[in-house]
Amino acid sequence: MHTDERRALDELLAAPPTPTRRPTVPALEERLFQPLPVLDHGFVRLVDYMGDDGAIVQAARVSYGRGTRSMSNDRGLIRYLMRHRHTTPFEMCEIKLHVKLPIFVARQWIRHRTANVNEYSARYSIMDREFYLPAPEHLAEQSTSNRQGRGDLLTAEQSGAVLDVLRRDAMQAYATYDTLLNDDGTGAPRDPDSPQVARELARMNLSLNYYTQWYWKVDLHNLLHFLSLRADPHAQYEIRVYADAIGDLVSSWVPAAWEAFQDYRMHGAFLSGEELRIVREALQGGDLDTLLASSGLSGRERRELRTKLLEAR
Amino acid sequence: MHTDERRALDELLAAPPTPTRRPTVPALEERLFQPLPVLDHGFVRLVDYMGDDGAIVQAARVSYGRGTRSMSNDRGLIRYLMRHRHTTPFEMCEIKLHVKLPIFVARQWIRHRTANVNEYSARYSIMDREFYLPAPEHLAEQSTSNRQGRGDLLTAEQSGAVLDVLRRDAMQAYATYDTLLNDDGTGAPRDPDSPQVARELARMNLSLNYYTQWYWKVDLHNLLHFLSLRADPHAQYEIRVYADAIGDLVSSWVPAAWEAFQDYRMHGAFLSGEELRIVREALQGGDLDTLLASSGLSGRERRELRTKLLEAR
Amino acid sequence: MHTDERRALDELLAAPPTPTRRPTVPALEERLFQPLPVLDHGFVRLVDYMGDDGAIVQAARVSYGRGTRSMSNDRGLIRYLMRHRHTTPFEMCEIKLHVKLPIFVARQWIRHRTANVNEYSARYSIMDREFYLPAPEHLAEQSTSNRQGRGDLLTAEQSGAVLDVLRRDAMQAYATYDTLLNDDGTGAPRDPDSPQVARELARMNLSLNYYTQWYWKVDLHNLLHFLSLRADPHAQYEIRVYADAIGDLVSSWVPAAWEAFQDYRMHGAFLSGEELRIVREALQGGDLDTLLASSGLSGRERRELRTKLLEAR
Amino acid sequence: MHTDERRALDELLAAPPTPTRRPTVPALEERLFQPLPVLDHGFVRLVDYMGDDGAIVQAARVSYGRGTRSMSNDRGLIRYLMRHRHTTPFEMCEIKLHVKLPIFVARQWIRHRTANVNEYSARYSIMDREFYLPAPEHLAEQSTSNRQGRGDLLTAEQSGAVLDVLRRDAMQAYATYDTLLNDDGTGAPRDPDSPQVARELARMNLSLNYYTQWYWKVDLHNLLHFLSLRADPHAQYEIRVYADAIGDLVSSWVPAAWEAFQDYRMHGAFLSGEELRIVREALQGGDLDTLLASSGLSGRERRELRTKLLEAR
Repeated sequence: MHTDERRALDELLAAPPTPTRRPTVPALEERLFQPLPVLDHGFVRLVDYMGDDGAIVQAARVSYGRGTRSMSNDRGLIRYLMRHRHTTPFEMCEIKLHVKLPIFVARQWIRHRTANVNEYSARYSIMDREFYLPAPEHLAEQSTSNRQGRGDLLTAEQSGAVLDVLRRDAMQAYATYDTLLNDDGTGAPRDPDSPQVARELARMNLSLNYYTQWYWKVDLHNLLHFLSLRADPHAQYEIRVYADAIGDLVSSWVPAAWEAFQDYRMHGAFLSGEELRIVREALQGGDLDTLLASSGLSGRERRELRTKLLEAR
Repeated sequence: MHTDERRALDELLAAPPTPTRRPTVPALEERLFQPLPVLDHGFVRLVDYMGDDGAIVQAARVSYGRGTRSMSNDRGLIRYLMRHRHTTPFEMCEIKLHVKLPIFVARQWIRHRTANVNEYSARYSIMDREFYLPAPEHLAEQSTSNRQGRGDLLTAEQSGAVLDVLRRDAMQAYATYDTLLNDDGTGAPRDPDSPQVARELARMNLSLNYYTQWYWKVDLHNLLHFLSLRADPHAQYEIRVYADAIGDLVSSWVPAAWEAFQDYRMHGAFLSGEELRIVREALQGGDLDTLLASSGLSGRERRELRTKLLEAR
Repeated sequence: MHTDERRALDELLAAPPTPTRRPTVPALEERLFQPLPVLDHGFVRLVDYMGDDGAIVQAARVSYGRGTRSMSNDRGLIRYLMRHRHTTPFEMCEIKLHVKLPIFVARQWIRHRTANVNEYSARYSIMDREFYLPAPEHLAEQSTSNRQGRGDLLTAEQSGAVLDVLRRDAMQAYATYDTLLNDDGTGAPRDPDSPQVARELARMNLSLNYYTQWYWKVDLHNLLHFLSLRADPHAQYEIRVYADAIGDLVSSWVPAAWEAFQDYRMHGAFLSGEELRIVREALQGGDLDTLLASSGLSGRERRELRTKLLEAR
Repeated sequence: MHTDERRALDELLAAPPTPTRRPTVPALEERLFQPLPVLDHGFVRLVDYMGDDGAIVQAARVSYGRGTRSMSNDRGLIRYLMRHRHTTPFEMCEIKLHVKLPIFVARQWIRHRTANVNEYSARYSIMDREFYLPAPEHLAEQSTSNRQGRGDLLTAEQSGAVLDVLRRDAMQAYATYDTLLNDDGTGAPRDPDSPQVARELARMNLSLNYYTQWYWKVDLHNLLHFLSLRADPHAQYEIRVYADAIGDLVSSWVPAAWEAFQDYRMHGAFLSGEELRIVREALQGGDLDTLLASSGLSGRERRELRTKLLEAR
């Protein structure tokens, strides 16, 4: 973090609270503004929020007051709404985050279109010399069973070698970028005999592990959808850690909605019509192996069903 | 249908086909333009479509040619995409419908935001004297178990009485509307001593069972989401019949996607973490009733789980 | 307002404020929760808000602290962003409203798709006996020059007659609705010998001037777009008054953005290439009438250009 | 292009047309499938389209037949819709493109959220060794007047040096990527003693000028909005050339809408309230310089207004 950024942040953290009549979540107030570290140089920072568990109930009932006739009633209604996929009341809560993340992660993230984004502009500003290098325990081989996943970890020697070339190339990319910009930090050329190449051009030399930043604002329904995909074990590790950090904030923000989300989404599973038929017959005394063998499911689907049925999540 | 509408439609139906190099679905070409009747005066008319099953595969592979290396490969990939909720390839097909529907149905329908709509304007044009009356076999009492559903059917005598008052009020509403407009069909006043009240004002007297019309265009992913909610038994009958008519078109249009949608969405069900635990223990020899009784599920959830597990859909 | 609604609202208004570290707008805090009357029975109520003018600047700069290096810098940047249609920073503010409005107004409003909505459900609940009747000074004839607008006002006698029939039909519609529901207020039948027709059916008899309610949440960019269309003189009066009430809230909430919006949107106008050419030549000494006469503009476009150029807005 | 891609494309181009009753645009049929070259290795390929000028009219009228009572009527209505920003009828046309583009261009492009996208997956597949290098005539210095633009061109010597380092770094980035993948083209390791690093990790070493590909599908309204921003002189050159190529397709596809878009959007300009006042007073005989000097406009706004008023676009 630059000195002026640190100062701005410190001022924000030191500022006294102001009174509001809006719904307020004390457990989340404590977590405002402070960066939660993610990966080697990234973070998630809570910038603002709107609403709480009560706001979900209030919108579902289109009521005049807050949702809180009683906390247990609210919890029950929220669970009902989550279970039956009544999604619009969850859209009535909103959260705003400041996120620092590698560009290749940003490219996955931005595919979630129902959100508001302001990204740091490398046409306008100069990028920092910060790039992501995996920790050795996350450097893995290509999976042989899953074409878009990771398999075995590299050995210590292998990962050392890989990190060396990744670091070398990233440093080289920035050195060139820096030379092309030819900016001494005040906007004047460092080398007066060389051009200052346009920022929008020079940036193309940076690699996808360089960090970018953005403000990201999203409603709770779309955020939970994001988390259901990106906190999933099939998501790439480097985005999953961001999803986990955000999930931790959500659990402080709307605890009843978070609990319902865990129960009815993250720990649950969808069974197809054929899968339900197999379960039905197995519950009525059929042998699961026999039923699977005679089913219309592919080998892959059979393995997936076993996992869903037999392993606790 | 007005005479000029009938003539325009007949011209369209009589026009010779033109050659195209775009993907074409012969089974759907036959169904173009002709209204499929829905309810007493409504319809769904297929106006245009883009893509086919192959276009889903083509987009998923970001390929140069069509998707069809072989039909069985395509079907397998489509089923994989549907099963794993890889939704974006399904967005690559698009359909455009002309729909005539009661206003209270239109108000539910329009809640699906990811679609393009042009509705007939009652600020600009005069509404037809066409309103929806339920068939006696769809006139039901308020459900006692489900606060937003129907229960027992009315008797013949009761439904006759209900239809009489509905018809009377709708006729009266239109008579007033017509008097306020005071338009002899050419734009001139029928009664020269009375004002021609602004159309945007007069329309407010019509009731919610009056028919409106719109053009509606949507991609296949969002259409399937619409159908999963609106063809569901919990949806109101009057929108479900539109969903069914559209589903019938979709089955002609993208048969592989439709089959996968039936298997993996419509005939399947989501099980929560707690529900999966109960199934797991029941499959390992536990007694379902005992497990349910000692579970954290509410009475309502227990009934729902029984339905999911024990009744074929 | 029902007694229990009044009580819930009073509790909300009497509750003490809580401390927050989020951006707070004192001028808006004062306006929270209290209904602003619109039309004869409608209202707009501010339920919650996120962000302020500083939040726009903060997002545009992707900064660590608040946007406020100085208020005049912030104002200048906001004006720059508005002028150059850099819209995403304005998406970083969010507002939530509770609105009571006639159904025919709701049908126009809902066409703005980038917003979150929870509407009172007439499948689930019973509608109130509240319908809109225009004030005599808003009862107008169909415009002869604009097919979707209003022309001359009705005479006192004419408007009295119109209001009589509108009131009569609306009362009749509700009487039938009430009879069909056959609910004594506790859920039990008022007439034990008659059925309680399903709510989702009975509602179809109500007319489009009946009031509905919803929670509506939207970001500032999309709200300003809504206001630019619905506060425009061409918008129907009955939605314009809602836009005006909301605009009044926005002016308290984000005064710098509101000022820029007035200057660069509401009081400005778009000139086509041909219109710019005419202005250019007129500024260089050409005669405006002669230039218009020899231009490619239609008669209607010429009148529109005169209005844009010669009348202060 | 790979051999199998070439073959798939040739098959597609050689396939005979099929008959359809959908709206067909002969001038666009000729341009289907064939890549239009953009930049050094990129392209835009038309994959499919839905609708034509008539479809805009048809939707605006919610009509039963095609829009074409007469071509001149249709053109007039389309111009009216464009002039008055009635945008929904333009949403009734849809286009699907296959685009190959540098990643830094893709990152700007994807900010347009109302579109459907399927991108080539570097988690799943191996990227080609293709990267963008600017032509010398597009290698420019940072602008001194516009913080996000280009200024003077580099000299031949300077641009040669810049291209050398860009090429060197891009080659080095790919060499490392290739070593990390350690794939001999069949999936087997080239060097059996080294690991095959997961594709989702190895890709992070590639730079932002590497080419990616996607399928992109969008409706005409949102496409025109995209073009209005990205074909603008302030857009970065590397995305502007894509916008220009797409604009060329649109002019074949919907000529009346394209003409209206040129007249009412691209060649026009928005004037603020203050700017309109200055024009008004200048047209009434005031001196433009004096009016500008005494106005509330900033120096920058004054220059912008002069440009809008005095230079033909």
